[in-house]
Amino acid sequence: MKAVKKIGQQTIAFTNPPVIIAAACIAGPKEGKGPLKDSFDKVLEDIYYGEKTWEKAEQRIFQETMELALEKANLKTGDIDFMLAGDLTNQIIAANFTARSLAIPFIGLYGACSTMYEGLALGSMLIDGGFARYVLVGASSHYATAERQFRFPTEQGVQRAMSAQWTVTGSGAIVLGSEGQGTRITHATVGRVVDFGEGDASDMGAAMAPAAADTLLQHFRDTGRSPGDYDLIATGDLGKYGRQLVIKLTEQQAPALSDRYTDCGVLIFDESQDTHAGGSGCGCSAVVTCGHILDQINQGRIKRFLGVGTGALLSPCSCQQGESIPGIGHAVAMEAG
Amino acid sequence: MKAVKKIGQQTIAFTNPPVIIAAACIAGPKEGKGPLKDSFDKVLEDIYYGEKTWEKAEQRIFQETMELALEKANLKTGDIDFMLAGDLTNQIIAANFTARSLAIPFIGLYGACSTMYEGLALGSMLIDGGFARYVLVGASSHYATAERQFRFPTEQGVQRAMSAQWTVTGSGAIVLGSEGQGTRITHATVGRVVDFGEGDASDMGAAMAPAAADTLLQHFRDTGRSPGDYDLIATGDLGKYGRQLVIKLTEQQAPALSDRYTDCGVLIFDESQDTHAGGSGCGCSAVVTCGHILDQINQGRIKRFLGVGTGALLSPCSCQQGESIPGIGHAVAMEAG
Repeated sequence: MKAVKKIGQQTIAFTNPPVIIAAACIAGPKEGKGPLKDSFDKVLEDIYYGEKTWEKAEQRIFQETMELALEKANLKTGDIDFMLAGDLTNQIIAANFTARSLAIPFIGLYGACSTMYEGLALGSMLIDGGFARYVLVGASSHYATAERQFRFPTEQGVQRAMSAQWTVTGSGAIVLGSEGQGTRITHATVGRVVDFGEGDASDMGAAMAPAAADTLLQHFRDTGRSPGDYDLIATGDLGKYGRQLVIKLTEQQAPALSDRYTDCGVLIFDESQDTHAGGSGCGCSAVVTCGHILDQINQGRIKRFLGVGTGALLSPCSCQQGESIPGIGHAVAMEAG
Repeated sequence: MKAVKKIGQQTIAFTNPPVIIAAACIAGPKEGKGPLKDSFDKVLEDIYYGEKTWEKAEQRIFQETMELALEKANLKTGDIDFMLAGDLTNQIIAANFTARSLAIPFIGLYGACSTMYEGLALGSMLIDGGFARYVLVGASSHYATAERQFRFPTEQGVQRAMSAQWTVTGSGAIVLGSEGQGTRITHATVGRVVDFGEGDASDMGAAMAPAAADTLLQHFRDTGRSPGDYDLIATGDLGKYGRQLVIKLTEQQAPALSDRYTDCGVLIFDESQDTHAGGSGCGCSAVVTCGHILDQINQGRIKRFLGVGTGALLSPCSCQQGESIPGIGHAVAMEAG
């Protein structure tokens, strides 16, 4: 016997594909000066956002994004069956405190920067499985909360490696529904943890690329689709070097990803913004998906989209103890409604 | 329209209740001297478990517990559709590195000490929803990794408050299946985050009790059941003071929980072990459920069990920034097969 809705090894094909009822995103000031600036619902003037600490600012951004998504969906918190969310701060406090304010039954996630896509995959299963009518999915990151937690005190002014990426300040939220008009989530490929032994916390794109490639190849095998079946394929936050590695890692086993493949971390900043390899963080794939990509789908420029949220599963402690950095990638296929 | 499998506000009643195919638990040396010592599959001689660091020891315990559960279920990693797991270490590295070794499609969770029950609730939905035939759920904690991460360096020898609890060293794992013989998961009530303003990180039982009470009352309202419908009700890790608070908080709105209500943190240590208010940590509800409680059900002493995994959603950073400690509780009802 086989799970009914699973095709191949790791992919779910939804029987009643959940609908993206509404999406919202709020981004930081640096992101608001980048090429995707017009796709954000709101751009912060500064990263404190009127709060005393960066962590409180991230919580406020997270909560406002979730509330904005609900408002756009014309729904109230009481209409939502489950909230699935997470972020990068220790003990996912931005998500936890948002869940406290919204008081929706809450399932806390930790998928590092893949969290938005982990939430979309799971949320779609909860809806397609008949457990929920509406699910609210969200993820956030904040440059300064991540920098001081994972790397160095920002005051120290440590020089960043050219392979380093810039953690996106921003939050994305999506309301999924069991019915209605809009873009649908047709497939989800839940990733495995993959580790090629990369140990450099300044080169997360390289750490995550093998997992992204593994999930992409698995998705194509499971669905019988090839890159050409999608108008756009985007990984979450590999940056420019990680993207190149994914192209390398997949070229032997699948038709070329070609120009239709990009990365949210490549899209969100331009070269003049001095972010080195591009953007990263839970907020990276979250704001790019909830803004730019869904805009493209809604405007009819893309019909079929495959997104792979990518996460680097390190901790400062694991790096200090000599561990390498495993990665994970969760793929979600969307189709214009 | 309403989600088909939901009853009341927050509860899922499973159409095809998932079966607990196998369970395993490994516990630390202190736990192995407590009243539940005979219910553990393995007891460690020391908390390093042959590793150089406590974190690596926790990873090893986690992985061995998951492998033991698979062995008992007579299944291989390739048979498992999803692994749902988490722990208390930053960036849930014990779970992440276990997922790397097992290479099962992985959904990382963070529900603080409620993680085992969050995983059981979600895993049951994935099976009942037709997305999986087998799901592997696990959670761990380790006294020393938690102590130095959340509180003080252990070398400092800070005196513990009488309301403090002792983080359990241990890991529990459960294989859920869509069919077979055994104890079944009939209901899951996913909790909301509740915060009564408790700010003392040495009194987590008080911080979590309101959430546990909220979920218990909601479960009774949603299902039309009362405490008397269960042979045993256990919260995850409230300890003796938290347990008393739950009794207080529920007595006005439901029939008395009475003697059939206990807490895993109360069961795991006895007074002579000087743990003060009892046990805590993801491992607390995990090892007590996977060992003692499932033993009781399998031996026919309990027919219906209601467990509420409880989590305190704090971080050292949120406490330092003056935040109170919200709690969450996820309830899972089990019935002898």
